[in-house]
Amino acid sequence: MELLKKRILKEGRVLPGDVLKIDSFLNHQIDVELVDEIGKEFHRLFDEKVDKILTIESSGIAVAVATSKYYGNVPVVFAKKVSASNMANDVYSCKEHSYTRNIEYNIQVAKEYLNKGERILLIDDFLAKGEAFNSLIDICKQAECEIVGCGTVVCKTYQEGLKRIKDMGIHVEVLAPVKSLENNTIIFD
Amino acid sequence: MELLKKRILKEGRVLPGDVLKIDSFLNHQIDVELVDEIGKEFHRLFDEKVDKILTIESSGIAVAVATSKYYGNVPVVFAKKVSASNMANDVYSCKEHSYTRNIEYNIQVAKEYLNKGERILLIDDFLAKGEAFNSLIDICKQAECEIVGCGTVVCKTYQEGLKRIKDMGIHVEVLAPVKSLENNTIIFD
Repeated sequence: MELLKKRILKEGRVLPGDVLKIDSFLNHQIDVELVDEIGKEFHRLFDEKVDKILTIESSGIAVAVATSKYYGNVPVVFAKKVSASNMANDVYSCKEHSYTRNIEYNIQVAKEYLNKGERILLIDDFLAKGEAFNSLIDICKQAECEIVGCGTVVCKTYQEGLKRIKDMGIHVEVLAPVKSLENNTIIFD
Repeated sequence: MELLKKRILKEGRVLPGDVLKIDSFLNHQIDVELVDEIGKEFHRLFDEKVDKILTIESSGIAVAVATSKYYGNVPVVFAKKVSASNMANDVYSCKEHSYTRNIEYNIQVAKEYLNKGERILLIDDFLAKGEAFNSLIDICKQAECEIVGCGTVVCKTYQEGLKRIKDMGIHVEVLAPVKSLENNTIIFD
């Protein structure tokens, strides 16, 4: 997606630890118009029946809501990150390790919001090692949902996450595939 | 807002500890169409120039984005909840105590996303003791922004938050003012 890549080149910042920061339009401040274009693009790429969109708090929410509009306002469910001590009953859950924050979370979704056989599109902002998507995929499997695919705004294609998900036979779409952040330079695939 | 009140009466659940749960359309699963109507209503109620919308992760994000559309897609900024050990530089920050989770957070917004003199509309999903809005107000004052007002989807009007904010002379709008949750019954003002 050219519009997005241009924006990343213009405003993205490479930080120590192989971090690509795009806080000015996605992860802290949100450019609502751009996010709407992102939703439209996901709809074009996943041209299928979708019953629900599943994402994970917090940065996935705006993109998921924007995408929903293009599928006739299907419900968006956002998985919650909770500490182990705060687990509710009646949830599907999965452990996740956040490399950004170096914490263990439980990712959880209330059972009542994912029904057997529903066609679920997974949306998130970033795919690197694939922890978040793996958790969402695991939860969908627990709920016996059909996974339409995984749509990510940015992907570090040189890390293992993308391959891991593709190897499961899942349709993945990446809007901005980043090949390298070496020497503080963003290079797309 | 009648549509919202009806939905709360239909799907809201009163839980022990004076908790009103509206996970089926706002706080976990999102009804995108309803959230759009909520945005439209905030725009009707705050009929003023707005430069930016400020909210707080996670549940405020969808509502803030929906509201932005009615102000010509102004940027949305979501404040982040971080542990004290994870504080970044160059941020406005404020301590907040979450009564729902019984944790101390730091609420922070990067300085570069709030500019002196900008007209900021504060949007959140819930107002009870007012901790979240107070933090956002504090941050806006640090940034020398003008506060257009505070819009909350739900408010427990019998708790002190609403009065505290009104007493600061800030324009507050509540879409679903809850007067009581006693005996597991939701009563609106």
